[in-house]
Amino acid sequence: MKNVLGREIPDNIEGYGEVRPFQGAFSNCGVKEKVGVKVSSVKPGEDKVLNSIEEALDKVEIKDGMTISFHHHLRNGDFILNNVMYAISKRGIKDITVAASSIFPIHEPLVEYMKKGIVTGIAANYMSGPVAEAVSKGYLKKPAVMMTHGGRPRAIESGDLHIDVAFIGAPTADTYGNINGVYGNAACGSLGYAASDAEYADKVIAITDNLVPYPACPIEINQTYIDYVVKVDSIGNPAGIVSGTTKITKDPVGLKIAKMASKVIEASGLVKDGMSFQTGAGGTSLAVAENLKEIMRDKKVTGSFAAGGITGYIVDMFEEGLFRNIFDVQCFDLKAVESYRNNPKHQGMSGSMYGNPHNKGAVVNNLDIMILGATEIDTNFNVNVTTGSDGIIMGGSGGHSDTAAGAKLAIVVTNLIKGRLPIIKDTVTTVTTPGESIDVVVTERGIAVNPMRKDLIEKLKAKNLPVMTIGELKDLAENMTGKPEPIEFTDKVVAVVEYRDGTIIDVVRKPLN
Amino acid sequence: MKNVLGREIPDNIEGYGEVRPFQGAFSNCGVKEKVGVKVSSVKPGEDKVLNSIEEALDKVEIKDGMTISFHHHLRNGDFILNNVMYAISKRGIKDITVAASSIFPIHEPLVEYMKKGIVTGIAANYMSGPVAEAVSKGYLKKPAVMMTHGGRPRAIESGDLHIDVAFIGAPTADTYGNINGVYGNAACGSLGYAASDAEYADKVIAITDNLVPYPACPIEINQTYIDYVVKVDSIGNPAGIVSGTTKITKDPVGLKIAKMASKVIEASGLVKDGMSFQTGAGGTSLAVAENLKEIMRDKKVTGSFAAGGITGYIVDMFEEGLFRNIFDVQCFDLKAVESYRNNPKHQGMSGSMYGNPHNKGAVVNNLDIMILGATEIDTNFNVNVTTGSDGIIMGGSGGHSDTAAGAKLAIVVTNLIKGRLPIIKDTVTTVTTPGESIDVVVTERGIAVNPMRKDLIEKLKAKNLPVMTIGELKDLAENMTGKPEPIEFTDKVVAVVEYRDGTIIDVVRKPLN
Repeated sequence: MKNVLGREIPDNIEGYGEVRPFQGAFSNCGVKEKVGVKVSSVKPGEDKVLNSIEEALDKVEIKDGMTISFHHHLRNGDFILNNVMYAISKRGIKDITVAASSIFPIHEPLVEYMKKGIVTGIAANYMSGPVAEAVSKGYLKKPAVMMTHGGRPRAIESGDLHIDVAFIGAPTADTYGNINGVYGNAACGSLGYAASDAEYADKVIAITDNLVPYPACPIEINQTYIDYVVKVDSIGNPAGIVSGTTKITKDPVGLKIAKMASKVIEASGLVKDGMSFQTGAGGTSLAVAENLKEIMRDKKVTGSFAAGGITGYIVDMFEEGLFRNIFDVQCFDLKAVESYRNNPKHQGMSGSMYGNPHNKGAVVNNLDIMILGATEIDTNFNVNVTTGSDGIIMGGSGGHSDTAAGAKLAIVVTNLIKGRLPIIKDTVTTVTTPGESIDVVVTERGIAVNPMRKDLIEKLKAKNLPVMTIGELKDLAENMTGKPEPIEFTDKVVAVVEYRDGTIIDVVRKPLN
Repeated sequence: MKNVLGREIPDNIEGYGEVRPFQGAFSNCGVKEKVGVKVSSVKPGEDKVLNSIEEALDKVEIKDGMTISFHHHLRNGDFILNNVMYAISKRGIKDITVAASSIFPIHEPLVEYMKKGIVTGIAANYMSGPVAEAVSKGYLKKPAVMMTHGGRPRAIESGDLHIDVAFIGAPTADTYGNINGVYGNAACGSLGYAASDAEYADKVIAITDNLVPYPACPIEINQTYIDYVVKVDSIGNPAGIVSGTTKITKDPVGLKIAKMASKVIEASGLVKDGMSFQTGAGGTSLAVAENLKEIMRDKKVTGSFAAGGITGYIVDMFEEGLFRNIFDVQCFDLKAVESYRNNPKHQGMSGSMYGNPHNKGAVVNNLDIMILGATEIDTNFNVNVTTGSDGIIMGGSGGHSDTAAGAKLAIVVTNLIKGRLPIIKDTVTTVTTPGESIDVVVTERGIAVNPMRKDLIEKLKAKNLPVMTIGELKDLAENMTGKPEPIEFTDKVVAVVEYRDGTIIDVVRKPLN
């Protein structure tokens, strides 16, 4: 079968099940059901504190076939997933599905567990490094399920993704399971992605290296969701918690693109009091924020909110008064953590509040301007941020398709050519975000506007911005690089790309070579 | 049938259904299910703001037989319930069940709606004034269901109490339904009792007189739970929001009782670092807090938390450093509102987090010392705070049985005689809180300790406190007043008293006269 984007997808995928094909960004809405939850009630006098992960695995009766979950706020400094999986592996347990909101290079030990059948399923919104490569090589028994930051809480809350045991890395926890991310050696700020896991898993275990007397303050996830609290020596390496990608680019091409993107924003008419803004943490995207800062200053504009994964650059704009509030689902650096800890107007949000399309309105619905990256874009504006030019998984949506769907103006900023390969293609290797959600593509050589946005084309042309068709942009690139050979794939589906609403927007197949 | 306390209760009550008899404070625990929830998803661009309650009733398709809910943070200043019910009454709609967390004298218009069959059911944790009297007179078609502050969220979350439409009085709301109680003309502080309504009702309407631009800050109940936001002129009268009962008694008898209670607390050995404390807002209970303050100062003790409905007296202790934190489910006065707004260590909690016995540990579970009132106590230490000496409903548990069940030391403070009637009886008119949850009764003439607490009897005797049996206390009173004539009742059940776990601890029958 082909879905509405023309992607070839099996009706039924072994290890995944029946496929609900993607039919458009808002075709699967209406009244939705959040699933019931089992809760083991706790009586006065019962103690939640355990001394080891081993003890916790006993308490929750870990066994073959379970789905266990993790959140990724500790990013590439995370010790939780590896330590839990090590303890599980020693028990001879098989057939675990790891539902981690994201997977990083530090999680390489998963590769061995995949090979041994200890881990046979993965669900993640983003994965990079050895695990992603191993999935692409077909080492995982079932196809990995690639979700989005809003789609994952949707899946959990709807029951599509049932979690047997959630493990919550807690930079600070009290003895009764109130936790926060703003204090402790591994302080990471907002714990937004862990919220649905805590609310919907059958059993929830907080793991902390900073056990404090009751009650912890502030409380991000409260005691009514936590079954046990495990004290360990260290939950993560602070140096790995701060992502390496959160610096403004110094590359002149990137800076040129950012400048152009900021002119597009200005021309759109959206820069006015009450405006809202989000940007990814890529170097070019952050440079757009720097340019926007100047524009907002000049126009004396006060925005309503900036959202997302938050960097110090956004905090600077907020502290300067350019935004009244921040909505924060994860902090990318220590400046963001500090602001989140100290400024009540820097508000937390859960992954569900951030992007779940099946709640009563996610924060992304109120976004005016969103700056996005891309590894490939096709002439229908479909974007790939899931696989690289070799067809190997190297990322995933994260919040890409959530914010693109919500924002009034979703701008992709990208070099026209990367690593001698053109970014714009007839068809992308993998569709992560549907073209209908993308309004503009800004490159160093020109700007392509989605033809559905005639209004925007007029506005940009009126400002003499270099608007061309996406086909023209593609030709520009191909004239320089030649048309690259298509990647060849086997039939084996190694990953299923779930759109935020749970329909399948694409699959990733194993490359032939 | 008789339940474990020997209360005569029908197996099946018309208009209520099958009765699950009370079998002990913690006999109905274990694994419990929270029910699924229907959510109408909201797409980008959809507007939530409505201009009138009428419009909201249209949107939610209000109709005969529905259950609608209200929270009581605006107390006797609340305009929401009356205005919504007035709009419903004008539509010729019948058979509405009003699930209000508490009902006050201001809600008198309900009496007419009861007589007309517009309102045929009531569920409330507390009711006083004309509505309570009308229920006792049998004007309500179905028996009222009297819950507790923890039992109500349990009922909502389990599906026992299904809410079709929740109306949330919002002192501040933004255009997308983020709400808080700390700003606005009707600022009432914590909105803890509204949380489960917002999370579990089919439709949720925020009604505000302070509509602010998106996003509101802080957010107590967020946009993912709110279907519509209605702007009205006024949601309540600030003068009625502050309860009239929150002043320390000046009565010498009350002060004597309070002094004695504080000696009991001191003798119990619980006054030490990390201690936790809650008191009701009655004049004698507050006087106990004043005495405890002195003791904590003298001993240089820092408590962990004070909880509950919060008064300025508790805020004073907190600001003096006698407690590290406050857990606040409702603010009783403006000083509490101010502290809740400004001090992050003054933390909010939902009704469920406060007292739901079927979550993973409520805050009451961690209470050391709880000061309670009583209208009657029997020789098995069962307490009545539901009906008066005339058998007419004049209150209800509120958090009485929740905190009594959770606290290590639950102390009832009461005059031995009130209105020429003895407070201690062979059997109470209505059991609100089971005797097993009550540790001590302190009166101006002596102290009775629950015989199950042999340890405590020893400790109090060692301090030469006037310990006697509850029978002796009863005799003391009856020697002064004589034994009062028992109230005579008809067979008609006008209210069902649900214990916090959903079992039936008692029923209220219509008095004969």
